Amino acid sequence: MKRLDIFGLLKKDMNQIEQELFRSIEGDHELLNETSMHLLKAGGKRLRPVFVLMGGKFGSYDLDKLKHVAVPLELIHMASLVHDDVIDDAETRRGQLTVKSKWDNKIAMYTGDYIYARALLLATKLENPKIHQILSKAMVEMSIGEMEQIRDFFNTEQSIRRYLLRIRRKTALLIAISCQLGAVAAEAEPKVGNLLYRYGYNVGMAFQIQDDLLDLCGTEKQIGKPPGSDIRQGNITLPVLYALEDEAVREPLLKEIAVIREQNGECDVSAAVSLIKSSTGIARSEELATRYINKALEALDRLPNQRTKKNLRDIAHFVTKRSY
Amino acid sequence: MKRLDIFGLLKKDMNQIEQELFRSIEGDHELLNETSMHLLKAGGKRLRPVFVLMGGKFGSYDLDKLKHVAVPLELIHMASLVHDDVIDDAETRRGQLTVKSKWDNKIAMYTGDYIYARALLLATKLENPKIHQILSKAMVEMSIGEMEQIRDFFNTEQSIRRYLLRIRRKTALLIAISCQLGAVAAEAEPKVGNLLYRYGYNVGMAFQIQDDLLDLCGTEKQIGKPPGSDIRQGNITLPVLYALEDEAVREPLLKEIAVIREQNGECDVSAAVSLIKSSTGIARSEELATRYINKALEALDRLPNQRTKKNLRDIAHFVTKRSY
Repeated sequence: MKRLDIFGLLKKDMNQIEQELFRSIEGDHELLNETSMHLLKAGGKRLRPVFVLMGGKFGSYDLDKLKHVAVPLELIHMASLVHDDVIDDAETRRGQLTVKSKWDNKIAMYTGDYIYARALLLATKLENPKIHQILSKAMVEMSIGEMEQIRDFFNTEQSIRRYLLRIRRKTALLIAISCQLGAVAAEAEPKVGNLLYRYGYNVGMAFQIQDDLLDLCGTEKQIGKPPGSDIRQGNITLPVLYALEDEAVREPLLKEIAVIREQNGECDVSAAVSLIKSSTGIARSEELATRYINKALEALDRLPNQRTKKNLRDIAHFVTKRSY
Repeated sequence: MKRLDIFGLLKKDMNQIEQELFRSIEGDHELLNETSMHLLKAGGKRLRPVFVLMGGKFGSYDLDKLKHVAVPLELIHMASLVHDDVIDDAETRRGQLTVKSKWDNKIAMYTGDYIYARALLLATKLENPKIHQILSKAMVEMSIGEMEQIRDFFNTEQSIRRYLLRIRRKTALLIAISCQLGAVAAEAEPKVGNLLYRYGYNVGMAFQIQDDLLDLCGTEKQIGKPPGSDIRQGNITLPVLYALEDEAVREPLLKEIAVIREQNGECDVSAAVSLIKSSTGIARSEELATRYINKALEALDRLPNQRTKKNLRDIAHFVTKRSY
């Protein structure tokens, strides 16, 4: 998977973050090194560190401080993915075998615990208590979001509001605090941190909706896993909920979902995917993602003038157009 | 399970800690409240908070500060147990159904993640960075210890040293830092904190060895689970390793362990337990536990005179005599 490559001015610093990421998880335990390296090497967009650095541009930018937030945030994200893969029974992620499939569920659980702990250890190099408070609060919310996800598997009756609350916890919060903590670590004014939080929150919501759309409309090559993985595992996303509101597909789609549930996802899901794609669910989801992006841009407008604003605007536009 | 009741002078404060524990995990998520409460209500000796408070007696004792270390330490211990039960496939703990058996593995995993995060959030109320460093370092070591445990299941060729390193990470470190962090939070001299760490570390080692002995020699009523649970799940403890060095039982014991492994623990383990009990393994393990206790008492002797020293001495003696 490619990384975001629209950040010429951050490229050098992001390379250093990448090195720090690898250094941060190296320990003297062979198996944990292997599993953690496997995860890191699988790549990812490193979106959270990028946001941290850009947030830092609004204060006194110091990479040696910012890296102690940027690296932990990426590690926390990674750890949550490993635990997520246990829940989702995912065989691959980003085109690579998951830890739970290359090793097993138990090893995946402790790899996640280990990476969480390494993230926290690294963050303690910064002595600003506000950073730790923001970080641990987000981790509490994230774990609630993960639990919600289990509860809502195959719940076709859930409200849109419930879905939005779930992706808020699962995705948007961590992106929001990435933007904010960059500013906090760079000692920018609190107001700046709050606006960056709002920007990140709305970008994060749009990002997850786009992710959910890609799972239906992307190709296996683009998304690194077979399309329809969400519905296969019972993850009822926004396009599905909207499709269920579309009278033209509701009944047949409910039937398809019931079959998938009965077969524990071990069946062809292409009929369900086609139904969703033929419904108004795709366009309505895209529309909502665009609304979040517009809110992000509004927050951005209120930030002090800074060259980074253009980059943040580019990312916002990229999010709803990305195909990976 | 009874709590330690030898601390007259801490009783009132421990009651407050108990209330704080319940308050600390209460959130607005119903299922997480249920699972966390289930865990808390199952009880436990609350050994870590007791050690924190006693450590605090060596500085300026302030319960309102100490509770922000005492409660997180008990929560971290609890969270590690929930994840442990997933690995061990444990049906009961302390005579109660485990989260993984009352709910399921996935819910247990996220309950653990949630409790870890709540613990950290609470600890951020203290602004001393040293506390966070000590805490997160211990969490890294603990997760390595848990991983080691998986790797060493049914490994009858492991060295005594390997076993000791494992229980150091799994148990002794958290008890060591409980003693130390009490002193740190109460702003005692670093030397005092270090001696308390040494005391706690040695008590913790003895405590785990005693735990491993109880699993073989205790009754189901005493230990809240059927005896022989460790060997059933392939956890090769000190008495087993010593028994394997005893020529009189080595061969038949290896055969029994091979059968248990083959049957995935779903068989009668009483023959294996009897063999270990008939070996020199029990007495040698008791002897080593006593050696650790003596080291703990040595560290204690070097601490400043303080009424609490008597209580710490009592706990040290209690550890190797306890039957629960």
